[in-house]
Amino acid sequence: MTTIQFLAQQLLAHNVKHLFCVPGDYSLKILDGFAKEGIRIINTCDEQGAGFAADAYGRLNGLGAVCITYCVGGLKVTNPVAEAFAEKSPVVVISGAPGLRERQKDPLLHHKVKDFDTQLNVFKALTVFATILENPRDIGAQILQAIELALQYKRPVYLEIPRDIVTAEIEIPKNGFSTGFLQSNPKALDEALKEAKAMIESSSQPLILADVEIQRFGLQKELEMLTTQTGIPVCATLLGKSVIAETHPHYIGVYEGATGSEEVCAYFDQSDCLILLGVFMTDITLGSTKSALDMSKCIYATSEKLTIRYHSFEEVRFEDFVKGLLALNIRKSLPKQLPHPPSPLLSRIDENANISVNSFFGLVNSFLSPKTVVIADVGESLFGAIDLVIHESTEFISPAYYASVGFSIPASIGAELARPHLIPFVICGDGAFQMTGIELSTACRYNLRPIVFLLNNGGYSTERIFLDGPFNNLLNWNYSKITELLGCGRSCSVKTNRELKEAIEKAMSDRDSFWLIEVMLSPTDHSLALQRMAQRIMP
Amino acid sequence: MTTIQFLAQQLLAHNVKHLFCVPGDYSLKILDGFAKEGIRIINTCDEQGAGFAADAYGRLNGLGAVCITYCVGGLKVTNPVAEAFAEKSPVVVISGAPGLRERQKDPLLHHKVKDFDTQLNVFKALTVFATILENPRDIGAQILQAIELALQYKRPVYLEIPRDIVTAEIEIPKNGFSTGFLQSNPKALDEALKEAKAMIESSSQPLILADVEIQRFGLQKELEMLTTQTGIPVCATLLGKSVIAETHPHYIGVYEGATGSEEVCAYFDQSDCLILLGVFMTDITLGSTKSALDMSKCIYATSEKLTIRYHSFEEVRFEDFVKGLLALNIRKSLPKQLPHPPSPLLSRIDENANISVNSFFGLVNSFLSPKTVVIADVGESLFGAIDLVIHESTEFISPAYYASVGFSIPASIGAELARPHLIPFVICGDGAFQMTGIELSTACRYNLRPIVFLLNNGGYSTERIFLDGPFNNLLNWNYSKITELLGCGRSCSVKTNRELKEAIEKAMSDRDSFWLIEVMLSPTDHSLALQRMAQRIMP
Repeated sequence: MTTIQFLAQQLLAHNVKHLFCVPGDYSLKILDGFAKEGIRIINTCDEQGAGFAADAYGRLNGLGAVCITYCVGGLKVTNPVAEAFAEKSPVVVISGAPGLRERQKDPLLHHKVKDFDTQLNVFKALTVFATILENPRDIGAQILQAIELALQYKRPVYLEIPRDIVTAEIEIPKNGFSTGFLQSNPKALDEALKEAKAMIESSSQPLILADVEIQRFGLQKELEMLTTQTGIPVCATLLGKSVIAETHPHYIGVYEGATGSEEVCAYFDQSDCLILLGVFMTDITLGSTKSALDMSKCIYATSEKLTIRYHSFEEVRFEDFVKGLLALNIRKSLPKQLPHPPSPLLSRIDENANISVNSFFGLVNSFLSPKTVVIADVGESLFGAIDLVIHESTEFISPAYYASVGFSIPASIGAELARPHLIPFVICGDGAFQMTGIELSTACRYNLRPIVFLLNNGGYSTERIFLDGPFNNLLNWNYSKITELLGCGRSCSVKTNRELKEAIEKAMSDRDSFWLIEVMLSPTDHSLALQRMAQRIMP
Repeated sequence: MTTIQFLAQQLLAHNVKHLFCVPGDYSLKILDGFAKEGIRIINTCDEQGAGFAADAYGRLNGLGAVCITYCVGGLKVTNPVAEAFAEKSPVVVISGAPGLRERQKDPLLHHKVKDFDTQLNVFKALTVFATILENPRDIGAQILQAIELALQYKRPVYLEIPRDIVTAEIEIPKNGFSTGFLQSNPKALDEALKEAKAMIESSSQPLILADVEIQRFGLQKELEMLTTQTGIPVCATLLGKSVIAETHPHYIGVYEGATGSEEVCAYFDQSDCLILLGVFMTDITLGSTKSALDMSKCIYATSEKLTIRYHSFEEVRFEDFVKGLLALNIRKSLPKQLPHPPSPLLSRIDENANISVNSFFGLVNSFLSPKTVVIADVGESLFGAIDLVIHESTEFISPAYYASVGFSIPASIGAELARPHLIPFVICGDGAFQMTGIELSTACRYNLRPIVFLLNNGGYSTERIFLDGPFNNLLNWNYSKITELLGCGRSCSVKTNRELKEAIEKAMSDRDSFWLIEVMLSPTDHSLALQRMAQRIMP
């Protein structure tokens, strides 16, 4: 078996059926090999698009993969790979490279930067495992190790394949790779759970805050059962939004510290027992409240650490702790007065009025169903989306912590391929669209059909709040003409709530191609969430 | 004086009047500060475009600058910065970043990857100097050092500015920064020149091969005088194409080893004294001939080393050696039979026939003048351009070694701002256009007017020669509709030589906006250069 056959086999074993790429001379044999093994090759316009698509695919599929050429391709995916690292998405980065025989005497082969290890060194800074496949005796084990580490840490790994190694015969490892990752120490787990139980049972207002690791480790069902069974209400971070169906009666909304809903914030502050599950302590998801968080009332469990009040436990796996909490059979009575997650109401929308940020999200909300997945870009697209009601778990994707503008459209490519039965609702700003919107070409090419809402508010409006200047302006394109450039897709531009409603209805019924709906907004109209956020983030 | 004032002052002192950027919350104060100091802020659609524009600006202006935000911006310019490193273009990379006060206790601030040094570590691998500006006592000296190193090595440097440092008052260094870069040792220089003189004078067929360092170090005049005065003919590498006006009677063409012109290659091989000036020994520019080069007949001078036959000299600056060669007053008689650089002849073009790769370059060639600058992208755009006759020195730019597809259109932004009196002739393929062509938006916004030739041959045709598959196909856009999407610019699509000629005439006379000329080519029509190249590069 060759390197590429073994790698393809392992990816397919983890349900990776699509590979995102831009080809280059060093990567052609890799693409050809994968195609022959039955992996579908998805070309994007630019490597950046392939990186974001693979990230989104990894989030929904459990593992994603991107293949690029040496340096001129690899260095273009550093940002999406950094995003996958920061927000825990398991992605295998596969780079073509000069052959080992070509590297002798260190010649200046095209695409080389400082030396042959430059790209490897860059990816060491952005992944949990990075290596060059060189020795046919080790390659099989290295591939197993890379995939195992990606799955264990839910983070990207990097495999560089010199082009004379792609079809080299390799030794097949007899055993799978063991990361040496321990099972939980039963005594430590037991002690931690007993403490947690005592803390929760003696509390008068316990609250669960759930974040994205619940989704990454596949614990959504456990979370749902935990809140249903115990009567402890649950809120989510912005990054973790949709780890629980937002229609669940125990769900109180998104918690974002002082920048989020006042009602949720007050309930959180009053809680005497906070159960933080898989939470990233970030400035965006917690609204800069980390220093204010009183750890003496916290049970804080993630895949990297478990802390109860001020002490930590070793050797307790996140999954085991969450499942253990469920098995404790705690019963609390659900408080009678819970914050309601705000549900934007259609009845309050004047159909003849111009669209506002609030009416836009209200209208979109009325079309959400278990058949839609919302993919929000950065800025107003994300902050406004806080109040959307997601019907089932994991139907909301956004780069809510890493916050890389331009994620959403290429991400929708990966999302739709991973979950073909869902309709992506993509929400992005004009700035994001100018960065990566051209990847709608990829949607055309592979007959993908996202519904893209382009919020046209005439520039980087999020940044205007911080500090304005001409650098926050954008050239105002005729966005809906993109269908003419690409020769496919459908588009329209809408100003009033009625036009928006009719456009969504049309896009939901005419499902033959992507839809771009340009939503005209006033540059000075902002969601409350964004205004609060701006006040907090700027030093 | 504040950090940003001092940095702006230093950039302006080196004629950096434009700064390429995409704004982000960590970089807003930097942009605002530069604008107030009189540096013009140029927004691109995506950071990649800003990086390529700054590289091209650096090549033509002697120094360029790009400003991006932390990680989500910085990591998007790793590829253009790697290109600037590989092909020696001096670019100052200025990154916004979280404030020093915000970094205390290592919180998860938005955009952070592994730790606060991740981006710094990545740029250490891609620049000759990378630092975070932290201490007001050192900042002035660090800025001087960064700019001096960029200029000395003609390579990128990286300055990260925490946002609470941007307007901090700093100490102004009393002295300029000395890199400790020695003047040449006069005795070593003298010995080297004497040896060179003896070698050249005793040779019967000396030849100069000039590469891009001649341009980077501003030695074009010296090169011209050297060949004029000594009668030694000169050829150029592909990367160095146009370091001498190609209309010079002593110029014999581009040398690319076995992949280039046979006549030039034969003359090169027969030479008994090769004077290699500023040459990068790369697989592309030398056509994989490095191992075959007989060093016993070489005088090999670059900014990094000086070697005569098999021995090297220390402490001899490249500039001093080139100027020293000129002062030697060597007189050789110009050989009577020199290879003619092929000049594509209009008379052989059938105006009614469909455009071929050869007729395209022949027609474009007839429009070149001292008022045009050719910017060639990678692939057929570059290989076909070999035979264009560039009229004055430095009117040809391409990533001929690093070979990053998508360079040309954003590069034209930087080139036109650096040399506003020149008309950029941009030659790119459909693959390149789908990557970065959208930066024509930036041309619109700042009223820049490149003439873009889009060679539409239905996919990554250069790669088809190596190994073909569906991954080399592209969606066939209606490219000329980009003017409708952007709401500006002019475009057309041409099939016959007559249509092409008329389109160029129109674009040269109607100079109110950019022009996109889509040139329809057969997917199977290749330049001879590309066919030879493909045979050599593929192992």
